[in-house]
Amino acid sequence: MANNGKRQELGIVLVGAGNLATNLGVALHSKGYDIRQVYSRTGESARILGQRLSTGYTTSPGEIYSDADLYIVALKDSALAELIPQLTVGRQDALFVHTAGSISMDVWEGYAHRYGVFYPMQTLSKARLVDFRNIPVFLEAKTEEDLKLLRSVAEDLSVSVRELPSEQRRCLHLAAVFACNFTNHLYALAAELLAEHDIPFEVMLPLIDETVAKIHELSPREAQTGPAVRYDANIIEKQLEMLVAHPELQELYRLLSESIHRMSNNK
Amino acid sequence: MANNGKRQELGIVLVGAGNLATNLGVALHSKGYDIRQVYSRTGESARILGQRLSTGYTTSPGEIYSDADLYIVALKDSALAELIPQLTVGRQDALFVHTAGSISMDVWEGYAHRYGVFYPMQTLSKARLVDFRNIPVFLEAKTEEDLKLLRSVAEDLSVSVRELPSEQRRCLHLAAVFACNFTNHLYALAAELLAEHDIPFEVMLPLIDETVAKIHELSPREAQTGPAVRYDANIIEKQLEMLVAHPELQELYRLLSESIHRMSNNK
Repeated sequence: MANNGKRQELGIVLVGAGNLATNLGVALHSKGYDIRQVYSRTGESARILGQRLSTGYTTSPGEIYSDADLYIVALKDSALAELIPQLTVGRQDALFVHTAGSISMDVWEGYAHRYGVFYPMQTLSKARLVDFRNIPVFLEAKTEEDLKLLRSVAEDLSVSVRELPSEQRRCLHLAAVFACNFTNHLYALAAELLAEHDIPFEVMLPLIDETVAKIHELSPREAQTGPAVRYDANIIEKQLEMLVAHPELQELYRLLSESIHRMSNNK
Repeated sequence: MANNGKRQELGIVLVGAGNLATNLGVALHSKGYDIRQVYSRTGESARILGQRLSTGYTTSPGEIYSDADLYIVALKDSALAELIPQLTVGRQDALFVHTAGSISMDVWEGYAHRYGVFYPMQTLSKARLVDFRNIPVFLEAKTEEDLKLLRSVAEDLSVSVRELPSEQRRCLHLAAVFACNFTNHLYALAAELLAEHDIPFEVMLPLIDETVAKIHELSPREAQTGPAVRYDANIIEKQLEMLVAHPELQELYRLLSESIHRMSNNK
């Protein structure tokens, strides 16, 4: 898509109005893409995103436009599987993509002729729009031609676009759960521990920032610090005692410390 | 310490030559403090840090200078307890501080008259010097006067200086283990998973950066995303299957997912 004319020729229907659909829709819209309609089961979400993209919306699968060129489905996994049969019927010529890290491209097989995957790997919230240019986008398509089409759209939005087969994408998504969802939860647990002693979470931010700055220069293995590296039993036992009122945190603490120690011994 | 003259009047001995001693020593030296000697059991570390700070060094506890005003002990916890009796004897007038998050100030009791804690909370490596100005420093001292002295030194180095009693500091250190050491280990585990599929860890960095950028604006609880929030059993079961060759990762995955789900239900 080298210019606005080309972008206008590709009629898009956005199926979904959640965090990913919102961020992706706004990015496409700002690049001049023709988003013809937004669909979501949730009326309020559909209406808000439709307005944001200056386009129409529907909450009824039967009212999804039939004449789009590209259907981008950004629904949670169970809703995706449910909608596919109805969405694809009578739309033989269109290209269908989903945006899920953990779902194989084959989910479209038997339903659509042209299909693929458009997976932007990022932690997205409606309340915080991110600059799409820095989001790595991973693509897959049944044919070379459709891969080329998806690549031209993706490269309009992001500087980091790669083809990645389903098997590797599944692994990527799993790694992302560890590196993003699980680390964020550790921040949340730290915040809880601090709150018990009336310490504001903000004091932790310089440490968290530096932890991340380090792994831009060193491998996470090289960057590892803390009592578990040398298995300082004295500190570890004392910290486990402090968690006595939180048995599930004790268990997490023990597992993570053992895992750190195991990894540093395997260097 | 308003000026270099004052800084020169405070003779400092740095006990330790590890990551923290190195970063702290370099920061003090660059501010014009008079570091009279470096001690470390490890000759090579002592020599390198001594050179870096243009000062002498020793590897023998018996040769530590007796006439310093401030002894800053940055040793690992077990080594600290061992050295205290020998270090404090015959040095009645000096001020002693340790730099450990998890050790009570009382460790000095019965050995020294003037003592305290100087805890810079950061993940420090010799290979990567950090800007000390952004490191939160937490102080404690037996007397108001010594607290004032420590505060003047700390404020020369950092913009973020607070007094914090031992009990709260212990909690802070525990929270830091979760927010820094454990999160870094999750990065290391993600890197291992990716390596098994020949995916470079670098693709993960935009996601990791955004995860951290978010908690500068939202609480970690509000920022939480991923399959565990809504307990998407379909994805969770598939990802657990993918970890079948790594039982310890399966266990971690399960515990963290349950913990995330529990927290999001308690909103």
